[in-house]
Amino acid sequence: MVEEGVKTGGRTERSKAAVLAETYRQLSRSGLANVSIDEISRVSGVSKTTIYRHWPSRSALLIDACSRLGGNVAVPDTGSFRGDLHTLLTGLAEQLRAASWSAVIPSIADAAERDPEVSAMQAAWQKALMAPFDTAAERAKARGELPAGCEPADMIAMTVGALFYRRWFSREALDARFVDAVVNQAMTPGAFFGRL
Amino acid sequence: MVEEGVKTGGRTERSKAAVLAETYRQLSRSGLANVSIDEISRVSGVSKTTIYRHWPSRSALLIDACSRLGGNVAVPDTGSFRGDLHTLLTGLAEQLRAASWSAVIPSIADAAERDPEVSAMQAAWQKALMAPFDTAAERAKARGELPAGCEPADMIAMTVGALFYRRWFSREALDARFVDAVVNQAMTPGAFFGRL
Repeated sequence: MVEEGVKTGGRTERSKAAVLAETYRQLSRSGLANVSIDEISRVSGVSKTTIYRHWPSRSALLIDACSRLGGNVAVPDTGSFRGDLHTLLTGLAEQLRAASWSAVIPSIADAAERDPEVSAMQAAWQKALMAPFDTAAERAKARGELPAGCEPADMIAMTVGALFYRRWFSREALDARFVDAVVNQAMTPGAFFGRL
Repeated sequence: MVEEGVKTGGRTERSKAAVLAETYRQLSRSGLANVSIDEISRVSGVSKTTIYRHWPSRSALLIDACSRLGGNVAVPDTGSFRGDLHTLLTGLAEQLRAASWSAVIPSIADAAERDPEVSAMQAAWQKALMAPFDTAAERAKARGELPAGCEPADMIAMTVGALFYRRWFSREALDARFVDAVVNQAMTPGAFFGRL
């Protein structure tokens, strides 16, 4: 068991990282409801006292670990908004199919139904995951490819929502044909482009 | 405690209904992971022996109760596919905002990640919930409003997926403005209408 004071920066950071890594591993394997602090303490070698010194509650630790799910996605720059959107959605579909974090998300959505702290964390996490889409849309507005009045949030809900729908609800194929159809419909001049 | 043989049809049906009603109540209140057979037996007055005679396992009972979530939605007939789609999505948004079953769905999606039986049940449940959308689209095809080659499944993923996205992921407003924007983009001639 590792016990250290707040002053030993290096060791503190190392033990926090070990706790977060094990929390993340358990989250990915078993979902939020089945994460065990006892097990995290045992595997990470960090005492429960120390864990609770860094995170005041089980929820605080889970929220911290959840907020790291998904990682950073670079904003593509293909020269057109259609190209950027296609690249982003193709990458997301790949992650939804294969990444371990994709199996964890429903357990977070479930906990969020009953815990306002988790709900706020989830909304913030979702916003961060969508930041590259926002950046691409803002860039497209700046070069006149999208009208100033278009709502990227609507477009994100319809395109990313379509992928989420297949991954976690209908459980239909998330293949290249489907991603192409979603991009084509989203890029059809219409509501997103201010032509109503 | 109610114990009855398989021959007493009326009582059997009544006790099954009581068990399903209490299971549904617990599902709506606490999510799938927190449903307790002990508590169902206590509240419904049906013994655990009888419960397990009707449903071989806890999963079987949960699957049966979950399959009843959401209920039946009538297929609207407004005279146009746009009108039907708008009516269906407005009704769905209302249910997602207010109906008790809407808080249960993430717990089913979560269990489905680790239980193939639940996953199959969820996909079937989703298909049943979407049946009115399919019926409206098929009717629109029959009267030539939608081309024969259009894929209702893609349209459902983008429109219903957009609503699900806001309800369970981004937790943004599911208001009339948003539903209108989704219908407008879906109804813009493009991928769904075979014009690619």
